[in-house]
Amino acid sequence: MKTLKIIKIGGNIIDDAKALDDFLYHFSKIESPKILVHGGGKLATKLAEQMNMKVQMTDGRRITDTKTLDLITMVYAGKINKSIVATLQKNTCNAIGFTGADGNTILSVKRPVKEIDYGFVGDVIKVNTTVLETLLTQNIAPVFCAITHNNDGQLLNTNADTIAAELAIGFAQQYKTELYYCFEKSGVLINVENDNSVIEHLSKETYQELLAQQSIANGMLPKLNNCFHAIDHQVHKVCLGKPSMLYKQNSKHTTIQAS
Amino acid sequence: MKTLKIIKIGGNIIDDAKALDDFLYHFSKIESPKILVHGGGKLATKLAEQMNMKVQMTDGRRITDTKTLDLITMVYAGKINKSIVATLQKNTCNAIGFTGADGNTILSVKRPVKEIDYGFVGDVIKVNTTVLETLLTQNIAPVFCAITHNNDGQLLNTNADTIAAELAIGFAQQYKTELYYCFEKSGVLINVENDNSVIEHLSKETYQELLAQQSIANGMLPKLNNCFHAIDHQVHKVCLGKPSMLYKQNSKHTTIQAS
Repeated sequence: MKTLKIIKIGGNIIDDAKALDDFLYHFSKIESPKILVHGGGKLATKLAEQMNMKVQMTDGRRITDTKTLDLITMVYAGKINKSIVATLQKNTCNAIGFTGADGNTILSVKRPVKEIDYGFVGDVIKVNTTVLETLLTQNIAPVFCAITHNNDGQLLNTNADTIAAELAIGFAQQYKTELYYCFEKSGVLINVENDNSVIEHLSKETYQELLAQQSIANGMLPKLNNCFHAIDHQVHKVCLGKPSMLYKQNSKHTTIQAS
Repeated sequence: MKTLKIIKIGGNIIDDAKALDDFLYHFSKIESPKILVHGGGKLATKLAEQMNMKVQMTDGRRITDTKTLDLITMVYAGKINKSIVATLQKNTCNAIGFTGADGNTILSVKRPVKEIDYGFVGDVIKVNTTVLETLLTQNIAPVFCAITHNNDGQLLNTNADTIAAELAIGFAQQYKTELYYCFEKSGVLINVENDNSVIEHLSKETYQELLAQQSIANGMLPKLNNCFHAIDHQVHKVCLGKPSMLYKQNSKHTTIQAS
């Protein structure tokens, strides 16, 4: 079985021109089939300020109203996605930018309203791999921004970590899929203040223990849920760490594999 | 030889939600392979005002500086392109949004500086049809916005009429290509004030005569140059008129074919 690498980068890389350039250079060199998923960074917030748009908040949580969705679509699917694609082409890595609406690749439902109406936020329900598969065999890297659609004309703001996990799961029957979450830390840390306290291999048992001890940083919880969800659905392995884990032999990171 | 329809819509359709919806409904019903190319409309200008951005002008012409290019990329490749793709999916027409950077489909050079430096404006030099061809055979409609790239990491603002013509020319060996320019008039008019004065068949000879008489409206000149450029490069036919020419039997329009 061929390996497929699905790599997610977050705001810390998107917002740092040099880090992004470095990352895209190394991404281009990856020889196996590959998919890039990128988050949004701070540009959308900056633009919202420039346009005097107020960020809608309910109970301390951001709400994606129509204007915010438009802004996100412009920034994520327009500016960021196309800049990445153009840079990859420069690095002779053929790439095509995607939202989940393109090729009907990722179908979502608007998150049901319970206590909070999050607005135009999508929960992924289906990944269609056919078109992507065709592109991968032509040595083209799909580049996803964090937007999906409901197949009824509505675009939906969707968590980029989730998109990466769902893509990895969607391909797990055809490829040995490896999911990489690149972020500012060297992996899952025992002590969040100490970047050397990386848990190099995280089993589900250890994860449960750490959860019980409440020693997982709050920001890591949804990410790790995505990781174990992927592992539970035949994804071969998940790695968390700095982008250098992709190209430096001894770059410390956390690996999660099915036991 | 199979027919490929390449259809360009301009700002008058983009800016009118109902007209756009109608058009996309009818576009979805076209059974032959098809490519959509869309212009920008007024949204970019509106946003520029909202952000207090000044439009750079030199000798009465707009200049695409870095900020304008960013704005255009957000509006054309983000908001407009993805809204169109999502609406096509709703109409069960599978579609993927493209700039010329995606799949390295349209390569341009920054327009050489002579009297005026237009900034980040691209002149098309090459169309790569391979990826698009694969998508067309999978019954997927590529949707192009008016942005290309120079293969050195630079996106370039590019005339949508030109993109449509160059795509039609690029496919002319594999398909019987038909190029449709949809706009607010019923075609090339003898009297620009009278929408009934349509020239139904425009030959190169008649065109030369009209040019000599200076009876072609200024706005039509570059469009007609694109048309005859396409016809001179094996495009089967070019039609100009209202979108209804695509689906209404008796909708008057101008047809140009090689003589």
